[in-house]
Amino acid sequence: MSSPTIHGIIGYTITPFSADGSSLDLDALGRSIDRLIDSGVHAISPLGSTGEGAYLSDAEWDEVSAYSIHRVAKRVPTIVSVSDLTTAKAVRRARFAEAEGADVVMVLPTSYWKLTEAQILAHYGAIGDSVGVPIMLYNNPATSGTDMSVELILRIVNSVDNVTMVKESTGDIQRMHQLYRQGEGQVPFYNGCNPLALEAFAAGAKGWCTAAPNVIPQLNLDLYQAVLANDLNRARELFYRQLPVLDFILKGGLPATIKAGLRMTGLEVGDPRLPVFPLDMAGQAQLQKLLTLLR
Amino acid sequence: MSSPTIHGIIGYTITPFSADGSSLDLDALGRSIDRLIDSGVHAISPLGSTGEGAYLSDAEWDEVSAYSIHRVAKRVPTIVSVSDLTTAKAVRRARFAEAEGADVVMVLPTSYWKLTEAQILAHYGAIGDSVGVPIMLYNNPATSGTDMSVELILRIVNSVDNVTMVKESTGDIQRMHQLYRQGEGQVPFYNGCNPLALEAFAAGAKGWCTAAPNVIPQLNLDLYQAVLANDLNRARELFYRQLPVLDFILKGGLPATIKAGLRMTGLEVGDPRLPVFPLDMAGQAQLQKLLTLLR
Amino acid sequence: MSSPTIHGIIGYTITPFSADGSSLDLDALGRSIDRLIDSGVHAISPLGSTGEGAYLSDAEWDEVSAYSIHRVAKRVPTIVSVSDLTTAKAVRRARFAEAEGADVVMVLPTSYWKLTEAQILAHYGAIGDSVGVPIMLYNNPATSGTDMSVELILRIVNSVDNVTMVKESTGDIQRMHQLYRQGEGQVPFYNGCNPLALEAFAAGAKGWCTAAPNVIPQLNLDLYQAVLANDLNRARELFYRQLPVLDFILKGGLPATIKAGLRMTGLEVGDPRLPVFPLDMAGQAQLQKLLTLLR
Amino acid sequence: MSSPTIHGIIGYTITPFSADGSSLDLDALGRSIDRLIDSGVHAISPLGSTGEGAYLSDAEWDEVSAYSIHRVAKRVPTIVSVSDLTTAKAVRRARFAEAEGADVVMVLPTSYWKLTEAQILAHYGAIGDSVGVPIMLYNNPATSGTDMSVELILRIVNSVDNVTMVKESTGDIQRMHQLYRQGEGQVPFYNGCNPLALEAFAAGAKGWCTAAPNVIPQLNLDLYQAVLANDLNRARELFYRQLPVLDFILKGGLPATIKAGLRMTGLEVGDPRLPVFPLDMAGQAQLQKLLTLLR
Repeated sequence: MSSPTIHGIIGYTITPFSADGSSLDLDALGRSIDRLIDSGVHAISPLGSTGEGAYLSDAEWDEVSAYSIHRVAKRVPTIVSVSDLTTAKAVRRARFAEAEGADVVMVLPTSYWKLTEAQILAHYGAIGDSVGVPIMLYNNPATSGTDMSVELILRIVNSVDNVTMVKESTGDIQRMHQLYRQGEGQVPFYNGCNPLALEAFAAGAKGWCTAAPNVIPQLNLDLYQAVLANDLNRARELFYRQLPVLDFILKGGLPATIKAGLRMTGLEVGDPRLPVFPLDMAGQAQLQKLLTLLR
Repeated sequence: MSSPTIHGIIGYTITPFSADGSSLDLDALGRSIDRLIDSGVHAISPLGSTGEGAYLSDAEWDEVSAYSIHRVAKRVPTIVSVSDLTTAKAVRRARFAEAEGADVVMVLPTSYWKLTEAQILAHYGAIGDSVGVPIMLYNNPATSGTDMSVELILRIVNSVDNVTMVKESTGDIQRMHQLYRQGEGQVPFYNGCNPLALEAFAAGAKGWCTAAPNVIPQLNLDLYQAVLANDLNRARELFYRQLPVLDFILKGGLPATIKAGLRMTGLEVGDPRLPVFPLDMAGQAQLQKLLTLLR
Repeated sequence: MSSPTIHGIIGYTITPFSADGSSLDLDALGRSIDRLIDSGVHAISPLGSTGEGAYLSDAEWDEVSAYSIHRVAKRVPTIVSVSDLTTAKAVRRARFAEAEGADVVMVLPTSYWKLTEAQILAHYGAIGDSVGVPIMLYNNPATSGTDMSVELILRIVNSVDNVTMVKESTGDIQRMHQLYRQGEGQVPFYNGCNPLALEAFAAGAKGWCTAAPNVIPQLNLDLYQAVLANDLNRARELFYRQLPVLDFILKGGLPATIKAGLRMTGLEVGDPRLPVFPLDMAGQAQLQKLLTLLR
Repeated sequence: MSSPTIHGIIGYTITPFSADGSSLDLDALGRSIDRLIDSGVHAISPLGSTGEGAYLSDAEWDEVSAYSIHRVAKRVPTIVSVSDLTTAKAVRRARFAEAEGADVVMVLPTSYWKLTEAQILAHYGAIGDSVGVPIMLYNNPATSGTDMSVELILRIVNSVDNVTMVKESTGDIQRMHQLYRQGEGQVPFYNGCNPLALEAFAAGAKGWCTAAPNVIPQLNLDLYQAVLANDLNRARELFYRQLPVLDFILKGGLPATIKAGLRMTGLEVGDPRLPVFPLDMAGQAQLQKLLTLLR
């Protein structure tokens, strides 16, 4: 199928809450989206892990989804994460996002009961049958509890027409090598593991899905430009410059660290929902120091 | 705090759905509960993993919770699983269950973002502050993604007054040994891993939380009786007799296998919700064979 | 084949060294063997993990092997660990031990390069063809780097005539269940994981291979007697009494802790060979305290 | 300390045996060394994993070590793996290699009993005190059973003067990032995981220790040259060209596949020692095909 050319730096949005965590702050969401686009990211991805999609009620999810798509307003492509525990609910979300104007939907096979390969394939098939937009298959065993082998991923890509892109977040570069080898270089893959950014590009990733542009957009973009310019030495240097921040936001948890980082730059987006804690004082000081060093 | 004496065979209920999976079948739920109680189980636990609690909408969850508690009607204690991703939602469920008459609530620290020990402790603390009934702490990293160490579990037991019982489902018997050693024999623990039933009782577990009584109640009860009678040889023999069924339902997935098993005995409870598949023909034949051998 | 009836408490011997670690102290070895036999163990097993077999030169290995067998002098059966990295060297050791009078040889598939199932099977086959005594197959992935599945173990038992016993040291009780189920109760299995002693006997293990009788023989023997007497309550109580020592010697490393324990009781056996350290002062104090509590 | 500049492609040698595996074939070893040097590798490393060092008797080890060093004859630096289970034996080997003229010794903390950090540090310290040549610390948990953290590695580098280089074979690129970050770019690191060759160079590795030059030296050298030329696109293309061979030799086991590969090119070096099997017919056909494709 014809699909939008997704590439480069794909920025994750957070989901801002009111001070007590009970309601959404859509105005802050809009400003965070504008910032990302103004900084130069190549696509916007709402409601992913960083966006605390799993912690929203269905009504909230719909609201954030619709608002984000309309706010982006085709300035760049919007990739909406529509994962849900049951196939019926994931289908509903995918249809909703498409109806609101999403360019791509991203699907992680979240599970409570461990899924068989046939069940995962059927899950993608049902979503694929329900929408016309391209689907980015997302593999992230650390959050989903399901690890899809490269063989399974390619089986899904080959049997579900609109699964046309793969986001790999195991952090194991060999998965990308195998996607390249077994997919004969025809399946575009994207990196979802921040500290693997340099090597994923070296291995041929078409893009990097990351929450980092909320705090250090220029360094993320420069790394991608260095790779496009075939300048490995500069890419390596840029990568090591930003690695302390990438390590920090991964280790501290993306919603907590990114929300703290946005607050430091004057954009109040509230705290993550409990049981996730906001970044503590020591963490805030460390993040502030890391960001200051990069200026 | 004074707490009901929970011990013995604690039977999990399934959640019956209509043929197309879209609605609840409370009448079938009621009959499955009556069967379990008539067979002699010592407590009933709705909405756990077997009960597909994670796959229900909030409204459905409330309906199943209230209906189950009222149907049990204090014939035996009811232990309701109230786990949810956010602390606010888990608190709401715990309060709801208590208001409807639950004797105990069970709490698994489900997570999307990996939780720190402080976050887990605060989560239990918030739920503990919200209800007056005892809480059974539940550790099951395979489904929750969070593995609580024995040290953390005891820290929670010691700091949250109404966390008075521990359900261990790692399948690692050493956890029970350490609960016993470090808890100085004062913290009642329960086994949630079916193929560990014999050894958990040998190690001093007070009860066995299991879906198996839906299909082989007498063997489950006999094993417990043999342990109470201090008859290790008979307990071993009974365990190995039922082990093929225990292995089968674990490997095949509890909702799929238990629902198939109930159907075989004339109680139609529908299928699990997709993406989980119902038991396939080969699995049904194997289960039928295993059950026939035990008659 | 007809085989000696190996059962009960199978005591591991340490290998005593001179003060500087450079030479063997056979006299001390002899006294440690006599102690074990006098305490009532049902079999003696030299040159296992506890015996630092891997840290000896070939000449030392031969000396310890011959000396141990002759010192036991058929008072109880002797089970000699003959594992080595190459098949040729393991065959040589097995033949040597048999020639010196070993009743059983124990074989762990040690490896540097990861072995395939066919390679492991051929290794056991070659040793089996070379000796007439029974072979105890030993599975211990933590030290050997090779984890044999139950299916592979039974394939070896079925195809190599004199592999007639299985020692399981994964610490996973389900392996024993599967050995029992798939072996139809016909393959005698032995436990090699100290903190699993109670549950392994509950699951039907015929014996317990352990270094513990060097320091607490009576408690080990009493546990076995309680199991034979079908007294689960007493077995549980005895197990929890000795568990602190079992946990301690496992965690501290068997050669270091057992050698320290023997020294405390007046039998000087030297230290483990470097890079393994002798038990430090804090560890010695803790072990002394644990042993004192049991008197 | 002043140390030879080790960089680039560091070729591992195999250890040739006679047809029945019982004796060494030093003549074939000499020819395999000459081939590697003639092909352009930047250093030679005998007696590593590929060299079946663990499967040799002490006398054989000495013979291979001395012969290799003399045959290389300073045409390129020689890095001899001197790992052994006891500290005393590793020290002996290190001294022997130094006396024979080795430029560097490589040390993997092989273990039977799991080593503590203090024990590992003492082991490196003892070897460091015994020789004057630089030591390449080698981390490879898959074969040694010991995984050294980056913190421990840097502690060793900082406290043992002649540990000046680190070879990382976990296959986890994040280890190299952390070595770079925490070592402030001052600790040269080398890659020992073949399918990580591209990314290790991207991350700043100074060299690649590999058995591949025995069969595809030019592709290995070209990849290194492309990295030196800062040509990422060419490096990526060269990497993916040779990846099928790199994957194959890793999966099939280095001694078996490399010995088969040498035989295909007319250099008979015998088979690996049992229990390791030589490459089977299907594997030989596959390797032949892969190599033919690269011509």
